[in-house]
Amino acid sequence: MIHLVLGGARSGKSRLALNRVLAAHEAGAGLPQSGEWPRYFVATATILDDEMNARIERHRQERDAGWTLAEVPLDLVGWLREHGQQPGVILVDCLTLWLNNQLYHFPDQDFPALFADLLDALRRSVADVWLVSNEVGLGIIPMGEITRRFVDEAGRLNQTLAAGADTVTLVVAGLPLALKG
Amino acid sequence: MIHLVLGGARSGKSRLALNRVLAAHEAGAGLPQSGEWPRYFVATATILDDEMNARIERHRQERDAGWTLAEVPLDLVGWLREHGQQPGVILVDCLTLWLNNQLYHFPDQDFPALFADLLDALRRSVADVWLVSNEVGLGIIPMGEITRRFVDEAGRLNQTLAAGADTVTLVVAGLPLALKG
Amino acid sequence: MIHLVLGGARSGKSRLALNRVLAAHEAGAGLPQSGEWPRYFVATATILDDEMNARIERHRQERDAGWTLAEVPLDLVGWLREHGQQPGVILVDCLTLWLNNQLYHFPDQDFPALFADLLDALRRSVADVWLVSNEVGLGIIPMGEITRRFVDEAGRLNQTLAAGADTVTLVVAGLPLALKG
Repeated sequence: MIHLVLGGARSGKSRLALNRVLAAHEAGAGLPQSGEWPRYFVATATILDDEMNARIERHRQERDAGWTLAEVPLDLVGWLREHGQQPGVILVDCLTLWLNNQLYHFPDQDFPALFADLLDALRRSVADVWLVSNEVGLGIIPMGEITRRFVDEAGRLNQTLAAGADTVTLVVAGLPLALKG
Repeated sequence: MIHLVLGGARSGKSRLALNRVLAAHEAGAGLPQSGEWPRYFVATATILDDEMNARIERHRQERDAGWTLAEVPLDLVGWLREHGQQPGVILVDCLTLWLNNQLYHFPDQDFPALFADLLDALRRSVADVWLVSNEVGLGIIPMGEITRRFVDEAGRLNQTLAAGADTVTLVVAGLPLALKG
Repeated sequence: MIHLVLGGARSGKSRLALNRVLAAHEAGAGLPQSGEWPRYFVATATILDDEMNARIERHRQERDAGWTLAEVPLDLVGWLREHGQQPGVILVDCLTLWLNNQLYHFPDQDFPALFADLLDALRRSVADVWLVSNEVGLGIIPMGEITRRFVDEAGRLNQTLAAGADTVTLVVAGLPLALKG
């Protein structure tokens, strides 16, 4: 299953995604007993800020602490192909930073092909994948070609993944709006 | 019927509007046989970018190709009064560029009166009208009087049309959220 | 009851909140007869712009005119503790300007504690409180540390209040989307 959680800055999207993972998977959902299946927290940030570190630390300290942290700033497609081959759960936080890293390091690549590869890797994953992504297109776009490019690619990425996801949720002020599933 | 489709930049709002037009009208909906009623694609952009040209070209190449392209950067009210007098469908893509053109060429006009005129023309139209418009108010507004003005008028325009429309849909990541109808 | 009404710039959020107050309270809802219970319009703007003045003036001129205007740019917590002790209705328009005032005058205070105090005052209020707040996180965030800070705190404020509110509504183009309740 592919789950996409969209939201604005400081909308509570990451927390909502994590809570949903815990609720779904601790309820069973056809998985092995809690603690017996792998749980990956995939951080795409290259420099983890204090809030991200605090979030990961909270994960670690949870009662049922079996989360593995993976730092994957760029090769998310390859990582998913390798680690998605067995049941479990993968939480990617967040796609927007991954896109930003891709635009910075490989601005001239074929982005539609990249997004199609990502969706293909997600579809082949046996593990459930929860994707957190920013919605950035609902305001005025500040001047500048790079910003415009980022908004365009972020919109296309979210559309591509939303079309292929089993559930899509928009988070506003920490509350969910179901867009799909 | 008046249909308003709102969405952010690269949200898939134009594609969703087009798909809804095709689904509604090829299903019949009390109209003459497909291909026998006029279908207008009203482009408000003064300079059509590559994506807009590609979109129009895709329309042209569709099996049931009876779309007429009208370029209407400013006099949308007059155009609607003239072409809305018979059954058919009119897809306006998009209102935000039309507003931008109005603000550039006639900044001192009475905008509430303009929006009321537009709504009146829409209500008198016998043809179904689908309106695509940007939602731009859900982010921080960059500094500058012109930008502030644009956000204010865009918000008022969307409110005016939403109040008078039969259906209003918000598009996020290509997925619809029904706001009305 | 705590009601939170979120929306973008010129989304019609204030008007929708006012209409809901009037509809709910003129329908009775366990309150004394209309006109016999206090109704406060709490303006947080330090300088009232023309639209705000017009809005307040419209309130005054309404048939059932019993609104009291309170200008509360900063001490909203204290004001609510004092005036929320009897049945009635309080409409706060808007929290975003209040937050802006707090960030300008007391940037180094403990904002999570401030938001918790506000929620506590709201929970202790016997009067129904309607809170209008801007959603600002769904676009690109313009450069600048102060802007980033504002977006972060606004997001946290909205999350805190949404978690504690009885109803939360997102307003888009004047139309409501129920997020809670």
